[in-house]
Amino acid sequence: MSTRDVLMVADLVGVAVFAASGGSAAVAKRFDVFGVVFVGFVAALGGGVLRDLFIDVVPPVAFADWRYSVTAAVASLLVFRFHPQLVKLRRSVLLLDAAGLGLFTAASTLKALEAGVPAVGSCIIGMITGIGGGLARDILTGEIPVVLRREIYAVAALLGAIAVAVGFQIPVPDTPLMLASAVFICTVRVVALRRRWDAPVARPDPGA
Amino acid sequence: MSTRDVLMVADLVGVAVFAASGGSAAVAKRFDVFGVVFVGFVAALGGGVLRDLFIDVVPPVAFADWRYSVTAAVASLLVFRFHPQLVKLRRSVLLLDAAGLGLFTAASTLKALEAGVPAVGSCIIGMITGIGGGLARDILTGEIPVVLRREIYAVAALLGAIAVAVGFQIPVPDTPLMLASAVFICTVRVVALRRRWDAPVARPDPGA
Amino acid sequence: MSTRDVLMVADLVGVAVFAASGGSAAVAKRFDVFGVVFVGFVAALGGGVLRDLFIDVVPPVAFADWRYSVTAAVASLLVFRFHPQLVKLRRSVLLLDAAGLGLFTAASTLKALEAGVPAVGSCIIGMITGIGGGLARDILTGEIPVVLRREIYAVAALLGAIAVAVGFQIPVPDTPLMLASAVFICTVRVVALRRRWDAPVARPDPGA
Repeated sequence: MSTRDVLMVADLVGVAVFAASGGSAAVAKRFDVFGVVFVGFVAALGGGVLRDLFIDVVPPVAFADWRYSVTAAVASLLVFRFHPQLVKLRRSVLLLDAAGLGLFTAASTLKALEAGVPAVGSCIIGMITGIGGGLARDILTGEIPVVLRREIYAVAALLGAIAVAVGFQIPVPDTPLMLASAVFICTVRVVALRRRWDAPVARPDPGA
Repeated sequence: MSTRDVLMVADLVGVAVFAASGGSAAVAKRFDVFGVVFVGFVAALGGGVLRDLFIDVVPPVAFADWRYSVTAAVASLLVFRFHPQLVKLRRSVLLLDAAGLGLFTAASTLKALEAGVPAVGSCIIGMITGIGGGLARDILTGEIPVVLRREIYAVAALLGAIAVAVGFQIPVPDTPLMLASAVFICTVRVVALRRRWDAPVARPDPGA
Repeated sequence: MSTRDVLMVADLVGVAVFAASGGSAAVAKRFDVFGVVFVGFVAALGGGVLRDLFIDVVPPVAFADWRYSVTAAVASLLVFRFHPQLVKLRRSVLLLDAAGLGLFTAASTLKALEAGVPAVGSCIIGMITGIGGGLARDILTGEIPVVLRREIYAVAALLGAIAVAVGFQIPVPDTPLMLASAVFICTVRVVALRRRWDAPVARPDPGA
């Protein structure tokens, strides 16, 4: 299996995991089967579509390559069908979600850098790709985005994106750079979950 | 009147109908006159703008051709002015909304196929165009999107988009293909409304 | 200092002001430090990113020029750190916000016209750029967008955008045209705030 194949498999695993997170949120809101697939689809592919618009990959790969949408649809349907059993899998899902965050952020930062976007912009595009799907999922289901509330999530993505941008200047070869950054993001996220790390919160002004 | 004119008239009727749906939702939320026009505008043109970004039609036709925005603005203003009387028209509006869903989905799927997007991606783009405006309307007015809840709506659009993609391969001439698919989507939607068809809903896990 | 420098400084002031408005909204919702920066970032740069996608400036300038994102991040962090004192500055913030609305709308309308977008579409793009950031801020923080409720805000932007489009046809030289329109928008907005002008609201149908 070539490096390219490894990356493709990793990408589709990320799509499946994010689709499952979106599908679960939609089931909990009692959406119908199509709503569950739709939210799963947006959670899995929304960030990547935005990224492709930003770096002028048109049509976005999520529409150009059928494997992306089929993977997202199948994962969402499995969640719809087998949801009751999924609670027991919650821990695995959180782990896989962290893996997806890492892979999406690292791969997208690299794609943006290779498309000629400057370093700061590439980091932001990479982070948006990683967190964008969860953001869309929360907006569609009427929640204030969890990623913006009390957890180390986007911060982990941003740190990993910066690592990719720094390595890209040195330069470190692409594939190890991407995989190491993905593992780094995933590790920070998992450790933060276990230790219940939170980023600081401002005290709102009592007079506001 | 040429086929092209027929399509343009149909397109603008769809814009007007979707603008009216957005405007009504905004009036119900007591938005001011500009808010009503804005929500009507987004509901009427939002899906098409996304579609054009996906298939690299830049600037999007909603900005390049003034008839689109003027139609959306006029329809929204009429709703703002004559809203009380509109309740009596509710049945007509639901019918016209179904017609708009059919026309937008079918025409957009065809546009995407002709722009070289593969079949699966074209169906998804067509469906997004058809349902996107209503989605944006519900997000802007603070509702969980109705299209994702308990009705056969997006499913009708997706089935029609698949019909367009299949016919495009055979190939069937463009205009009859598009119109037949639009009528099909509209019919499925109207029958579903009359019979109160719903797509299945998962039982949320009691332990979740 | 050349005209170009003047415009760049004005642009970055607008970014800082909108970032501060987004950051304040996020602090009030008790988002963590990253959430505050993220909402500030989206409020400051979201409208401009959309505009650049519409007129085919890819990657959007917010990603291509690091000064935009750094300005947005610094302004958001300052709000996070010094929020309690900001209440006393509320009046200045409202003034600066009006200035940002004027500058963003006028400059973006001009950019769209120069990119060859027809007049009506350019006005709409300019208005979307001016109001888009505040819209995204309100959606991210779970509020119905204030800009769509009871204030003269988007109307001021639209009037100024129309002034730019008219002046562009005559033609008036670009820089004075843009600055005069920006001042006009800012003045309408400030006078509306002082006099509590509202656009009219429809009475919702009691039978609805």
